[in-house]
Amino acid sequence: MIDLDNLKNQLQVIAKYGSAMAVLGWDEEVNLPPNGHVFRGEVLAQLSADIHKRLTDKQFVTLLNKLNKPDSLKKLSLDNQVIVRETKKDVDLATKLPTEFIERSVKLSSKAFPLWAKAREKSDFSIFAPVLEETIKLKQEEAELIGYKDSPYDALLDAFEPGMNTKKLDAVFEPLAKSISDMIKTIAKSPKLPTTIYDLAKQNELNHDIVATIGYDLESGRIDTSPHPFQTTLHVTDVRVTTRYDEKDFWVSLGSVIHETGHAMYEQGLPAKYWGTPRGESMSLGIHESQSRLWENFVCKSQPFVSYLYPLLVKKYGTLKYTEEQLYKWLNRVERNPIRVESDEVTYNLHIIIRYEIEKDLMEGKLQISDLPRVWNEKMKQYLGLDVANDALGVLQDVHWAHGAVGYFPSYTLGNLNAAQLYAAAKKAMPSLEAGFAKGEFKQLLDWLRVNIHSKGRTYSSTDLIKHITGEDLNPAYLAEHLETKIKLAS
Amino acid sequence: MIDLDNLKNQLQVIAKYGSAMAVLGWDEEVNLPPNGHVFRGEVLAQLSADIHKRLTDKQFVTLLNKLNKPDSLKKLSLDNQVIVRETKKDVDLATKLPTEFIERSVKLSSKAFPLWAKAREKSDFSIFAPVLEETIKLKQEEAELIGYKDSPYDALLDAFEPGMNTKKLDAVFEPLAKSISDMIKTIAKSPKLPTTIYDLAKQNELNHDIVATIGYDLESGRIDTSPHPFQTTLHVTDVRVTTRYDEKDFWVSLGSVIHETGHAMYEQGLPAKYWGTPRGESMSLGIHESQSRLWENFVCKSQPFVSYLYPLLVKKYGTLKYTEEQLYKWLNRVERNPIRVESDEVTYNLHIIIRYEIEKDLMEGKLQISDLPRVWNEKMKQYLGLDVANDALGVLQDVHWAHGAVGYFPSYTLGNLNAAQLYAAAKKAMPSLEAGFAKGEFKQLLDWLRVNIHSKGRTYSSTDLIKHITGEDLNPAYLAEHLETKIKLAS
Repeated sequence: MIDLDNLKNQLQVIAKYGSAMAVLGWDEEVNLPPNGHVFRGEVLAQLSADIHKRLTDKQFVTLLNKLNKPDSLKKLSLDNQVIVRETKKDVDLATKLPTEFIERSVKLSSKAFPLWAKAREKSDFSIFAPVLEETIKLKQEEAELIGYKDSPYDALLDAFEPGMNTKKLDAVFEPLAKSISDMIKTIAKSPKLPTTIYDLAKQNELNHDIVATIGYDLESGRIDTSPHPFQTTLHVTDVRVTTRYDEKDFWVSLGSVIHETGHAMYEQGLPAKYWGTPRGESMSLGIHESQSRLWENFVCKSQPFVSYLYPLLVKKYGTLKYTEEQLYKWLNRVERNPIRVESDEVTYNLHIIIRYEIEKDLMEGKLQISDLPRVWNEKMKQYLGLDVANDALGVLQDVHWAHGAVGYFPSYTLGNLNAAQLYAAAKKAMPSLEAGFAKGEFKQLLDWLRVNIHSKGRTYSSTDLIKHITGEDLNPAYLAEHLETKIKLAS
Repeated sequence: MIDLDNLKNQLQVIAKYGSAMAVLGWDEEVNLPPNGHVFRGEVLAQLSADIHKRLTDKQFVTLLNKLNKPDSLKKLSLDNQVIVRETKKDVDLATKLPTEFIERSVKLSSKAFPLWAKAREKSDFSIFAPVLEETIKLKQEEAELIGYKDSPYDALLDAFEPGMNTKKLDAVFEPLAKSISDMIKTIAKSPKLPTTIYDLAKQNELNHDIVATIGYDLESGRIDTSPHPFQTTLHVTDVRVTTRYDEKDFWVSLGSVIHETGHAMYEQGLPAKYWGTPRGESMSLGIHESQSRLWENFVCKSQPFVSYLYPLLVKKYGTLKYTEEQLYKWLNRVERNPIRVESDEVTYNLHIIIRYEIEKDLMEGKLQISDLPRVWNEKMKQYLGLDVANDALGVLQDVHWAHGAVGYFPSYTLGNLNAAQLYAAAKKAMPSLEAGFAKGEFKQLLDWLRVNIHSKGRTYSSTDLIKHITGEDLNPAYLAEHLETKIKLAS
């Protein structure tokens, strides 16, 4: 099939540019000397423009449309149909956004980032407000270019979570917010562990040992240090994670390494033979986040995992000043915190829902930028019962809007919802699963994820995938039930 | 001048691809997980092909040829004439090598690197031999594509040292080899320093302090660890070096950091406004190497520099078991060593001449790969009087051939020749120069190099540059005289 091979070859060339960008991006966060940032931005812009040009190239689009005709499609294998169908979606989206618009977006976020950083540093929202207003206007323009049925926010959501929209999210998020707000009324005082110094080199060794045991292939990956932990894929044979360290809290690094390893194992489990095509790509942010959350919160904060972890800590750091039971309770503590990234897994979802409601109202023109700090603080009080000390610890805490990422936040809670439902299905399918964790056995779970999720690429939409695996639509009851156990531990 | 701006813009786009390749290449040597090498090779091949395609693009060549006409040229400033003239040389060379050939070259060296590393690790030449054979065949093919008069090796030499050939090199290298072989007969027993353990973290700190003092801008650079130290330029604002460490010998890391910093300061001193064009590029390898050798051997092994260094060592490692005088003699010891990069600066040149003879014979088909280890060992015996213990310490010690760099080695000794002559000129121009080193003052020398060499880019050929600065043609007497002083110290 010459046309199909031609399409695949061109997609693989595009993927090579994507890989180069991933290396440059990784290096930017991990290594780049201060003076190197400006030029690095120019190189990334060049490569990004090349990808856009190739994806919207006339001959390429003609080839794709030819393959996408019903007569041609039905001659293809199911895997190849996925490639054509999903590439068509990508190309349609790329075509809707003209180069001029992309350039304006990149420029605006270049301008917005330092203003946000300054505003946060000085805790002065007025420094960021004008450029945030511009950003929202640009995102509204983007929504118009992409098109939508009900809300302009739907157009943005769809890019991160194909098929997702405000109607569906409202139906899940509203009851979730209510039930969590009710739950947290009963939280007792949060447990503390006695102060312990954890040598950084030893933390690094332990992190490597644990994620290698879990299933992260370090022959095809590596762990580095960066201010904001992340995972990036340079290729299926080179999937990297980063972390950060706190000498007084080993979980700061281990927890984030496990989280990022969850992402990394998804990427390492994508089918190598389809690398560069949608059949070899991850499904959505919400599915991606389900993998990181599943390992971080469902596996690695479980009682059996803590039984496995505790002796490793003792071996590394000597006798500890706390028991295994204390460690387990401390890892699972629930504690209201005004900062999203420092929150426990229960209240975390309220942080997301607040951002979702605000983004939706901004996009729909129902909320003015000037009212944003007030509304933020009101919602923090309403949902979390917290008073926000200042805007740096409030509306200015996240970098996302400065990067022009609007519609991204819901994926975090979708990840939690997906993880809860998937983990329940996994436990049902493998009753001895958690018993294995205590012995350091994780292969059963990883294999199950490989077969059911990782190997599928973009074959199914996230909603179809969840239904396919768990036998039902996305059901918030699983997450609620899981969070209840945390609340019980904490009260 | 629309045509000239157009040319410059296109050169800058090419330079952005070059920068992306430099990041990927740096990462390959410093970070890449084992399984990532194959795909990395494919990405580099893609970018390399893109550069080649742009450099040989019909419209680009037409534009260049138009600007290169005598009538157009004379309307340009001298700087812009350099850009047109040197770009024409690059394009002519690139035109001789088809894209398909470039892709094969890049792929081959990505394949060769891990095999070389494994062969060296296991000291098993047979692991590397087949891919080395492929490499030599490819270089022979390259020589035929480029064209040459006397030896296929000339075609390769010219790429590193424009205007250089085997005839000229033979005329310098044969007598040099003889005189050094004679000199080293008088060496007394080499001085040793009492065993000292130098903490690796402290070595790293000291390396940073010293090269920053010398003039390496670490806001536009960084120092990493790799098995084979190197310098690479991602942009004039991001010029990196690597080193390796030995707990019992601080000079293994400091010496190589200083060497690579010599390269790095050349790159940081290139005119930023001409970045991406030949006016903003380094001249040749032989000039590049003169900068690293000048700092490593002429500045940092001098008596005044050792006076500056000794107290820094004491401050870092406590009272030393040796005197400043002993350190000075030890740094300048002449001692036959089977490893090139661990050699003293006298016998180093014999290592180069051995490699030169071998490369020439391989390229001319007078030497078979299977005979290589034997011939290597014979020459080591003949020139240096050394028995080679195993291939890891012999024919497998250098990465160059694994990178497809054949014809590169002679530049090292050309660098020594250039450095000796330039340093003599610098001392003549600035009589108080060396006195400053004792006080940690290096700015005078760096400024002189900036003005006379770095800022010139590719304005002059290396031979013209040397003549321009020193008032005479390349004269081996300066290096011979310098090496004699080392022999005197050592005997």
